Amino acid sequence: MSRDRSTSDSPSYAHVDNELVPMEDATVSIRDRGFMYGDGVFETLRAYGGEVFRWKAHANRLADSASAINLEHGLSQATLKNRIDETLTANNLDEAYVKLSITRGVQPGKLNPDPTVDPTVVVQTSPLPRGGINSNPVWDDPATLQTVKTRRIPDRALPSHAKTHNYLNGILARAELRVSDADEAVMLDTDGQLAEGATGNIFFVDGDALCTPSLDGPVLPGITRSTVLDIAAEEGIPIREDSFDINTLREAEEAFVTNTTWEIRPVKTIDGIDIGRGPLTTLLQQAFQNRVEKRYYDTHREVPNEE
Amino acid sequence: MSRDRSTSDSPSYAHVDNELVPMEDATVSIRDRGFMYGDGVFETLRAYGGEVFRWKAHANRLADSASAINLEHGLSQATLKNRIDETLTANNLDEAYVKLSITRGVQPGKLNPDPTVDPTVVVQTSPLPRGGINSNPVWDDPATLQTVKTRRIPDRALPSHAKTHNYLNGILARAELRVSDADEAVMLDTDGQLAEGATGNIFFVDGDALCTPSLDGPVLPGITRSTVLDIAAEEGIPIREDSFDINTLREAEEAFVTNTTWEIRPVKTIDGIDIGRGPLTTLLQQAFQNRVEKRYYDTHREVPNEE
Repeated sequence: MSRDRSTSDSPSYAHVDNELVPMEDATVSIRDRGFMYGDGVFETLRAYGGEVFRWKAHANRLADSASAINLEHGLSQATLKNRIDETLTANNLDEAYVKLSITRGVQPGKLNPDPTVDPTVVVQTSPLPRGGINSNPVWDDPATLQTVKTRRIPDRALPSHAKTHNYLNGILARAELRVSDADEAVMLDTDGQLAEGATGNIFFVDGDALCTPSLDGPVLPGITRSTVLDIAAEEGIPIREDSFDINTLREAEEAFVTNTTWEIRPVKTIDGIDIGRGPLTTLLQQAFQNRVEKRYYDTHREVPNEE
Repeated sequence: MSRDRSTSDSPSYAHVDNELVPMEDATVSIRDRGFMYGDGVFETLRAYGGEVFRWKAHANRLADSASAINLEHGLSQATLKNRIDETLTANNLDEAYVKLSITRGVQPGKLNPDPTVDPTVVVQTSPLPRGGINSNPVWDDPATLQTVKTRRIPDRALPSHAKTHNYLNGILARAELRVSDADEAVMLDTDGQLAEGATGNIFFVDGDALCTPSLDGPVLPGITRSTVLDIAAEEGIPIREDSFDINTLREAEEAFVTNTTWEIRPVKTIDGIDIGRGPLTTLLQQAFQNRVEKRYYDTHREVPNEE
């Protein structure tokens, strides 16, 4: 399973429509609905020690995303996994960022989606050193957060649990950060309640409870979010998934942001208000890293890692 | 200016990054932000007699769209017009559908948009017979409309006046029509008020007034919409741009949908309720066709056609 680490001099390969191609030749048609309309779904994944973290959970969410936009691509999870593995091997990567996309492909010149789909499947990878234990996290410092004006798209307009190529909402939120030079945008829903970051879920500590906006709001069900909730439950930490206003976050004792790349990234300030690091964040980070260690690097592991 | 009509046997060319390429070679990188995030803007245009209808209005709206997503592409309107003209010539098209797209191009691996942009510019054309005078409209029959559950994305989440490659909202609306086999989806805003169709603006007649949802709601400022309002003002028809509920539309005496391709398409039924054709729609259709005739086909024309 071990592969040599890719260097920046190595040629880079992408997987496009079941072929490995050098990155400079990795293209899609201008008539691909992914390009024309952002009509596709994707997953951002992470490989630890050559294996994709929680593949089954990612594959299931991808299936939910596809179902939410009525995209019947017909590809099995095993086929998709195989293409990811082939891309990692071609690029000699063990520790990697992976992006898997499925679009509705090229269809006759109509906006209406045709039920018959010849999907476009793309896998891209890039080197991403393992964070946590015996290593450094991918982020340099705890995150500076800034509340933005751009509101999260409501579920009635675009299904919030679907991760799609329609990503302008998050891009506009991030573009607002240019002035404040913050790391992540805090997005509210159209009712003014806390939703999520442009690329991650938000957690905070209030009293002894770990709080995070519930999936009833326009919140993506993050895989790292669910791992954190699992760990918290195991550790006996009280959990509150609820609707929160922005002041609750600003007054929190601890806060962190989660996504596949950042894992658990502590928050330093929100809208200029100091939050400061706390013991619960550290505990969860350690438990997260232990879980990764046990499941992806322990050669004597007994725990199945495909969940 | 006159070109031979393209046939389906002719090779088709697209304009990609300032090069004319056969359609089968017309591609963009999988790392193009247009593909990854739908991070781009577009215009759908129509050529009559070899000239793009209301180019200046389309070019201005494209500039508004780009500005709304902070995309400083640096291309002049003359450059863009030139690429469209080259594409029409290469495809021997006088009567055509034209799609012009500008994306944020390939940028280093971050979601945050970099202010330095090497944009991807794509022009696609296809034959589209002129409708109206001495010809048949592109649609076969008056439209069947169906109100859908998918709500228009609010302006606070994505600027409503921007025409972007994030088009899943309209696609999901159209996907709901599979059961009813309707031609166009009527979309409401998140307050339940009438917004627009998935690909066009909605007009209706109430008493002697021509009514259409105002641009205060999540409504794209259609070029055909503005042409229709111009004509109505010239003809002394009372205009009401306002907020309307769906029942007002269902009880209308006449209704029609406008977009660049359909021009003015009368509505037959809404949610199964018969609307029926009326005199005001016919009058506006005739005035629209006269305007096209005078500005794009009259060899002795005195009216400037670039507005």
